[in-house]
Amino acid sequence: MPTGPSALMAGRPIGQRGGWRLADTVAGPGYEEVSMRALVYHGPGRKSWDEVPDPVVRDDTDAIVQVNAVTICGTDLHILAGDVPAVTDGRILGHEAVGTVVDVGSGVKTLRPGQRVLVSCITACGRCRYCRQVRYGQCLGGGGWILGHRIDGTQAEYVRVPFADNSAYVIPDGVSDEQILMLADILPTGYEVGVLNGGVRPADTVAIVGAGPIGLATVMTARLFTPSHIIAIDVAPSRLDAAKQFGADITLNSLQEDPVARVMAVTDGLGVDVAVEAVGLPETFELCTRLVRPGGRVANVGVHGKPATLHLEDLWIRDITITTGLVDTYSTPSLLALVAAGQLDTSRLVTHRFALGEFMDAYDVFAHPGDTGALKVVLTR
Amino acid sequence: MPTGPSALMAGRPIGQRGGWRLADTVAGPGYEEVSMRALVYHGPGRKSWDEVPDPVVRDDTDAIVQVNAVTICGTDLHILAGDVPAVTDGRILGHEAVGTVVDVGSGVKTLRPGQRVLVSCITACGRCRYCRQVRYGQCLGGGGWILGHRIDGTQAEYVRVPFADNSAYVIPDGVSDEQILMLADILPTGYEVGVLNGGVRPADTVAIVGAGPIGLATVMTARLFTPSHIIAIDVAPSRLDAAKQFGADITLNSLQEDPVARVMAVTDGLGVDVAVEAVGLPETFELCTRLVRPGGRVANVGVHGKPATLHLEDLWIRDITITTGLVDTYSTPSLLALVAAGQLDTSRLVTHRFALGEFMDAYDVFAHPGDTGALKVVLTR
Amino acid sequence: MPTGPSALMAGRPIGQRGGWRLADTVAGPGYEEVSMRALVYHGPGRKSWDEVPDPVVRDDTDAIVQVNAVTICGTDLHILAGDVPAVTDGRILGHEAVGTVVDVGSGVKTLRPGQRVLVSCITACGRCRYCRQVRYGQCLGGGGWILGHRIDGTQAEYVRVPFADNSAYVIPDGVSDEQILMLADILPTGYEVGVLNGGVRPADTVAIVGAGPIGLATVMTARLFTPSHIIAIDVAPSRLDAAKQFGADITLNSLQEDPVARVMAVTDGLGVDVAVEAVGLPETFELCTRLVRPGGRVANVGVHGKPATLHLEDLWIRDITITTGLVDTYSTPSLLALVAAGQLDTSRLVTHRFALGEFMDAYDVFAHPGDTGALKVVLTR
Amino acid sequence: MPTGPSALMAGRPIGQRGGWRLADTVAGPGYEEVSMRALVYHGPGRKSWDEVPDPVVRDDTDAIVQVNAVTICGTDLHILAGDVPAVTDGRILGHEAVGTVVDVGSGVKTLRPGQRVLVSCITACGRCRYCRQVRYGQCLGGGGWILGHRIDGTQAEYVRVPFADNSAYVIPDGVSDEQILMLADILPTGYEVGVLNGGVRPADTVAIVGAGPIGLATVMTARLFTPSHIIAIDVAPSRLDAAKQFGADITLNSLQEDPVARVMAVTDGLGVDVAVEAVGLPETFELCTRLVRPGGRVANVGVHGKPATLHLEDLWIRDITITTGLVDTYSTPSLLALVAAGQLDTSRLVTHRFALGEFMDAYDVFAHPGDTGALKVVLTR
Repeated sequence: MPTGPSALMAGRPIGQRGGWRLADTVAGPGYEEVSMRALVYHGPGRKSWDEVPDPVVRDDTDAIVQVNAVTICGTDLHILAGDVPAVTDGRILGHEAVGTVVDVGSGVKTLRPGQRVLVSCITACGRCRYCRQVRYGQCLGGGGWILGHRIDGTQAEYVRVPFADNSAYVIPDGVSDEQILMLADILPTGYEVGVLNGGVRPADTVAIVGAGPIGLATVMTARLFTPSHIIAIDVAPSRLDAAKQFGADITLNSLQEDPVARVMAVTDGLGVDVAVEAVGLPETFELCTRLVRPGGRVANVGVHGKPATLHLEDLWIRDITITTGLVDTYSTPSLLALVAAGQLDTSRLVTHRFALGEFMDAYDVFAHPGDTGALKVVLTR
Repeated sequence: MPTGPSALMAGRPIGQRGGWRLADTVAGPGYEEVSMRALVYHGPGRKSWDEVPDPVVRDDTDAIVQVNAVTICGTDLHILAGDVPAVTDGRILGHEAVGTVVDVGSGVKTLRPGQRVLVSCITACGRCRYCRQVRYGQCLGGGGWILGHRIDGTQAEYVRVPFADNSAYVIPDGVSDEQILMLADILPTGYEVGVLNGGVRPADTVAIVGAGPIGLATVMTARLFTPSHIIAIDVAPSRLDAAKQFGADITLNSLQEDPVARVMAVTDGLGVDVAVEAVGLPETFELCTRLVRPGGRVANVGVHGKPATLHLEDLWIRDITITTGLVDTYSTPSLLALVAAGQLDTSRLVTHRFALGEFMDAYDVFAHPGDTGALKVVLTR
Repeated sequence: MPTGPSALMAGRPIGQRGGWRLADTVAGPGYEEVSMRALVYHGPGRKSWDEVPDPVVRDDTDAIVQVNAVTICGTDLHILAGDVPAVTDGRILGHEAVGTVVDVGSGVKTLRPGQRVLVSCITACGRCRYCRQVRYGQCLGGGGWILGHRIDGTQAEYVRVPFADNSAYVIPDGVSDEQILMLADILPTGYEVGVLNGGVRPADTVAIVGAGPIGLATVMTARLFTPSHIIAIDVAPSRLDAAKQFGADITLNSLQEDPVARVMAVTDGLGVDVAVEAVGLPETFELCTRLVRPGGRVANVGVHGKPATLHLEDLWIRDITITTGLVDTYSTPSLLALVAAGQLDTSRLVTHRFALGEFMDAYDVFAHPGDTGALKVVLTR
Repeated sequence: MPTGPSALMAGRPIGQRGGWRLADTVAGPGYEEVSMRALVYHGPGRKSWDEVPDPVVRDDTDAIVQVNAVTICGTDLHILAGDVPAVTDGRILGHEAVGTVVDVGSGVKTLRPGQRVLVSCITACGRCRYCRQVRYGQCLGGGGWILGHRIDGTQAEYVRVPFADNSAYVIPDGVSDEQILMLADILPTGYEVGVLNGGVRPADTVAIVGAGPIGLATVMTARLFTPSHIIAIDVAPSRLDAAKQFGADITLNSLQEDPVARVMAVTDGLGVDVAVEAVGLPETFELCTRLVRPGGRVANVGVHGKPATLHLEDLWIRDITITTGLVDTYSTPSLLALVAAGQLDTSRLVTHRFALGEFMDAYDVFAHPGDTGALKVVLTR
């Protein structure tokens, strides 16, 4: 039973999808045919792999993308825990995908059906004050993080991508869907919010607190600047092992030793040049402010639910810079180029692979990394 | 037995100092005669205008400077309150002066007796890792803020200036001692830690919380970058009036109106590009983090004694940059050039003038700005 | 007889203009009714104020703007001299205007008829590699400098503005058309290509070679950064007088004195921090490379027709940075804010005013500044 | 009468130098015995390995360093060709060494005899305007490039190092003299003047014109920023082979193919992000300006003897940045850290090794790289 637009599009001229399907619907057994499967949120703790209507072009700048590879983010778990009230019952989750354009609105100028694209976690109107300053994450024109949040997302057979010209990226030949999928969120987040906000430079010593997927993406992209040392700090031995494989030369289990003492020992008592917070807890943020040397930088990547204490009585005199940020994805073209050139191997982040229909299982595996060792799971059509 | 520079200066015309002091030495019983007056700290709440020994060259990079103009800093009041334990009984206070070089050690290469110099609040060894990165405030080689703190300071007739080549600045002709004296601490602090750390750019809207002397110095130096608006926030009407005169176009009494509401009203609901904290309290710091727009910067100038709360649950996603810092005085040559070129008029900061011998009175006036309207007091020889 | 779209559009729904007018043409007395007047290039040395068809929306991202104020650029004189072969017979000239939106295509999202807008000299597709890096002048998607160059321009009663969302700027209330008109080209060019590329900082000494309109715009915007000195160099006394009024504190007639000797005399023999070339000749460019201090910057603003000699045998060791550039207009929102805030007075650039119908006279005046003293001429509806 | 440091070192164990030389002095007729061997310039085309007096501390900031490893620079060949008139008959050549401190003046604060140090090609007074801005190469206080140029150099058994605190670098344990010797000139030059001035960023495409030693150092340090592609261009197949080994992924013989055509083919017709000139000829500089994309950067590293043509008629509109520069060695601490951390392997640059006494042979080998394949030659005690 053909459920998606790809099957429907056989033999048709590009761009006539809507018309053709309407005729088909008229001739066929009815509405349900133009439906797909998607992972739908039904309130805290509840999700299911539902049959839902296909997405269609609503605004002239929309594209419809057939999802060929999709993943799950830690943020999705937060949503399922009920921590993100903007996500309501019935919402299709997910903000990361690689797929094929199957339809575009009349205002889409640079994409056309048939192209393989990366669907980014950030949508950019391209016209507002922030988009003009390349701060797409702060878009005031209807973009920002909206997929799987304020509109239906990518954990589905098809997804509607608003402002497609500025929010999807054509993928060069010769790189796998899986490699590029890691560029939908995790790589640009670690790179922009951790490494670039942190101002990592060659020869720096960098501490990365938290060696989950986003911390590992930060380790991986910090290496692009050839720091002298990358110190990964976590409480899970398996994650510290992973950090070593991703490029950390020093790992430190903060349950077993005092991270401040160890860091001072390897930095002549000064502290690190850059500390990246990749957990999202007050304690790990405060740790970063104690690890950093005078004149250094603390880059917060973690998603926080509670305030932290900022020890200004110590820090006011120490020339510290602290940054926060949502990813803007301005680095996506650079990261694509690096993957295409073989300079960045993102596939090591993928530990588990599933078919789209196994989404419920994939969530289970991803939600229990302590048991499964999961970093990123990938689901493919 | 000549022990001090005054003996060495016999026959030289500089400052008449050698003249009378040499005579004095001849008439008196010896060492004590080569003495001077200085403002000496005697523990919390106690200070006096004492007769003390003249400073002498101890290290080859020292210069001895006759103080021609000196001022009092808010930090001196903190010391007198007992808040700075590193300052001990017997310490001469003060870290700001304009004077005349009267003696130099053999290792001083660029200064010579007779030159008029600015003695900066920051001493720089010029050789350590931080000095080589122009972060003199973090000097690891014996410098940083030491005058009137870890060694005797400038509130005296003479002062020993360590690492003089890198810590004192020859003053061009045609500018007054009083104008230049403001460059010893307050102007570079407002400029570097407030304006430059804050990244103020033409057309920005800048909020400056606290309109005391350092806040006003920030207003004055923010103007160098021609922001669209400078919003000064304080609780004292007289300070807000001063802020207007120094270049703020919007003033806001936070006792009378909600600063966040007002700032949002004048910034299309986004917040300011740059918020400068110039008070040193947790509440004013936290206010700054609420005033700033997504993508904006908070520059902390205030000296804090307590931690603040950092609302990461709101800020993690807002692309905020927070900076702290002690002044480095790397901008001192630029500020000297601006004063010499008539582009910066610092004399407006001076509200009260005294003779050196009136130091106790000057402290009284400076310590009660609510009554006296004092901004900066200047004492001259 | 109403000839423009505003009259024609009365009572019509937006976006149906083309249809309506076609019907009208068919029903009415013919083509000429939907016509306007424009300054048309007819090959080297020839131009006329012709009756031509009204512009209409061609692409969905177009806007049609009624021109309320327009000016002439030095580049237009180059075109008339035959120096810009891309401009062909029949082209309407002009790339600067302030006007009212009268029609928009379906893809225009942020503009609507009735809004007062600045039409910028640079058109930006908003989607290409360069537009995403805020280098609109290098747009690869059909933009860049196209108005009055590759497509019809602004020296007309109406103008079609492609990619209108990214190429026209809504004007805040309270500022005059004339003030804002200077922001169409000359101000952002002097500011971006001269001042910002030159990296002007507070306390710098800046030399600006050429005190024509673009040099004066550079003087005016250099002042935003409060340099210690601005040295204007030209051969025309009247222009040097103008430079003084616009903010240069030193002026220098290179026919009467050696500019290098004079500049060295006022810079301790080092040279200026920043030299801006605002003429477009090999000699003035080479002069800039001799005026600049080691470690300084040369910013080329002039439009050149011939190569220059770069004395690398002297310069290789001197840490010089040389920049070239077409304006990107990324600074337009900042300049608009500065004018609205009263921090930048651009009206002083306007020396002569005309009605639209007097375009031929306006060109005469503008083409002979030696006789007329013309800086910028403004033509208004 | 013993006048040199060797006498002062009696009884001290450092380097055994005192030992034999003191004995020698005792046995011999006096002053001449405190002599050493050095490579001395005797006018164009003439050099010899002469016996000359030992260097002694002249200024209090001097250090005397026993040379343990030294190399020859292409600049030395230029001197021998008579191209550097400031170098006069009798001058000891060389500006690169690794050695042991054997004596220091009273003004040297951070070095002490016995320490292993890198002697940098750049001497920094540490006090002048340029040194305070970390532009040591432009030092106005007696430094800059002076070793083997204006004062005696390092191609000798001992060398006097002025302003030693700011001009020599203590070497961490665990790294070889040979590795560190490459940091005396070639590595910081390629890194600062090529890579950092060129603004190389991750994912960039970088063209390096000239694959001699300095071009290879540029290739090696460009890799620190993980560009997508490094294109090395030269005329010698052996150098292109070396470039591949040092990290270039594309090599291009400009005798065999048109470099512009090839570069455009691999950059979508735009050109490279960064082009580095590492030859020193007008043609190679002009090539760089044709290879670079709009908005890109040309970093000149080559030493030029003739002017180049700058095609401003093409470049004025292309947003090009051109930089020149003498190395400042501000990056030396970073490069030392990278070598110590095993992140940078500089030893691959060394192709030939000699004893100090074989200096004449070493020059022969180095001067004929076409025959010998020499990149850098190292002479050790």
